[in-house]
Amino acid sequence: MIMDHTDLITTLKVKADQFNDFWIKYFPDGEPASLFEATKHLPSGGGKRLRPVLALLSCESISQNCYDVLPFAAALELVHNFSLVHDDIMDNSTLRRNLPTVHVKYGEPTAILAGDYLFAKAFEAMHDLNVDLDLYKNLNHGLIECILAICEGQQLDMIFEHRATITETEYMDMIKKKTAVLFSLASYGGAEIAGADTTMVTAMKNYGIYLGLAFQIWDDYLDLSSDEQTLGKDIGNDIRNGKKTLIAVNALQIATGTQKTLLQQTFGNPNATELDIHQVFSLFKDLKSIEYARKTAMNFNTKAKQCLGLLPETNTKQLLYHLTDYAIQRVT
Amino acid sequence: MIMDHTDLITTLKVKADQFNDFWIKYFPDGEPASLFEATKHLPSGGGKRLRPVLALLSCESISQNCYDVLPFAAALELVHNFSLVHDDIMDNSTLRRNLPTVHVKYGEPTAILAGDYLFAKAFEAMHDLNVDLDLYKNLNHGLIECILAICEGQQLDMIFEHRATITETEYMDMIKKKTAVLFSLASYGGAEIAGADTTMVTAMKNYGIYLGLAFQIWDDYLDLSSDEQTLGKDIGNDIRNGKKTLIAVNALQIATGTQKTLLQQTFGNPNATELDIHQVFSLFKDLKSIEYARKTAMNFNTKAKQCLGLLPETNTKQLLYHLTDYAIQRVT
Repeated sequence: MIMDHTDLITTLKVKADQFNDFWIKYFPDGEPASLFEATKHLPSGGGKRLRPVLALLSCESISQNCYDVLPFAAALELVHNFSLVHDDIMDNSTLRRNLPTVHVKYGEPTAILAGDYLFAKAFEAMHDLNVDLDLYKNLNHGLIECILAICEGQQLDMIFEHRATITETEYMDMIKKKTAVLFSLASYGGAEIAGADTTMVTAMKNYGIYLGLAFQIWDDYLDLSSDEQTLGKDIGNDIRNGKKTLIAVNALQIATGTQKTLLQQTFGNPNATELDIHQVFSLFKDLKSIEYARKTAMNFNTKAKQCLGLLPETNTKQLLYHLTDYAIQRVT
Repeated sequence: MIMDHTDLITTLKVKADQFNDFWIKYFPDGEPASLFEATKHLPSGGGKRLRPVLALLSCESISQNCYDVLPFAAALELVHNFSLVHDDIMDNSTLRRNLPTVHVKYGEPTAILAGDYLFAKAFEAMHDLNVDLDLYKNLNHGLIECILAICEGQQLDMIFEHRATITETEYMDMIKKKTAVLFSLASYGGAEIAGADTTMVTAMKNYGIYLGLAFQIWDDYLDLSSDEQTLGKDIGNDIRNGKKTLIAVNALQIATGTQKTLLQQTFGNPNATELDIHQVFSLFKDLKSIEYARKTAMNFNTKAKQCLGLLPETNTKQLLYHLTDYAIQRVT
């Protein structure tokens, strides 16, 4: 299957729409209306639905009958959305997907509850899974482990903001927990629902980890290299908050002399000016830290694609290759 | 079995200790240490373990082999603790069980995560349940429904604080969701694990609802009638926050003239003085609203005990009767 970027985006959109049509049932109207509205605010605000699409494609790359994967895909996206709602409170983020965050629009107490509600809804979606009970229990456990890891990853992320430096190993552990484990569950869970054998499930588990690492490093890169309009996020915030992206980790590691002083003074300084931010940007370029992060993401991308080798030769397999590349080519 | 109050407290304590010895495994040490410490702060701070003890007794009243009920009991207490951690953030509570609340001690972001962690741990405990998979799936669904109801109940509670009056029906719906459904799950889940038939399960479901309603009305009564030392809660806070207890609902309904004016001016007024609070206390007494709440709790207590009629005549059945009375006799 020869596919250009536009074809891929179109195909992913079709999958995402198929998913959106399905999971809307988890957002009925109800009382108290404020809670129900707050709960659907972020999920109905769009998003690429990468995790559910990944689960769908992973399943379809092995089996032709993948209707059963949809509730599982919904559970993944519900967990992702729950964690975003709570993270945005913790990080004081005001914008997400170009919309006000849930706590900005509905207040913090309602946002905490809306996150909890999405969390519970994820397990409700798992309950709707029409697979044998052993697999249900197994996947449920996978989801629990993921959520525990996501909490640990978010806590590490916050702790790292207040530390002067962290090692690359610590950074990798943090993003693995915060992001990659859920990509991994999407990939291997989709394969398990398709009836894949243990070897294939392990390969897809590793695939998801590498893809997730590549995705997260790229995400941090995008935050630094795009403007507010494109991403719907506050620019410069990462630097002012002292957020430890791979770019920052690398720069803090290799900077010396006045460069190190500049980084130490600006990084994590909430009062840093636009000029300060601009100088840190330039420094990241001079130290080739941006290039380093790019290359690291590409390495993980290559490793991810190697894991797909076992899959039968189908159009869906090719689509997964393209999706994997997309993770480090997307501009939003 | 003839049992006085001291015997009951001793017996409940033995059960609670048995439970505490079991569920401690859900609080290992780990990294990031701050998250693991925050997670165990409230659970290790004591508490009566009423919900798990209820599940144990409910099971033991039907079957002699109830070791399997322990992970289920742990799930209930984990959900209860998760909801307390998040509620305390929403309600700006500073004390719980005479200890600083989690967000006061560890900061709000970590407290949100600690609540999420306890939430996920509840489902991990469910995973440890050694029952047939149909029952596992069924109980898991019961727990999900409970959590959704608890979120709705907490949102209603917060909304009601800002409303001048609410009806008694609205109040009952709110406390049913916020408190009674989890008591109900403890009761009927324990019975299901014991192998109870449908009639018995339904009776225990109703038992838990009535017990939970009685318990919550009594809890609100205690908040108003005890001092800070006894309960570890901020006195007068309920009135300053405009919290709609049954006592308040009743008083607001029947007060007229200057009494109504006093209530309207003090209720929900964060700047109300000690004298204002004292006057409202007196008014509650004059209007017989405290007596009304007492009687209502006692009615639910009677209904709860009627639901126990189907249970085989054992010492555990008698213990459940005593526990039911305890819900409206306890002073803490």
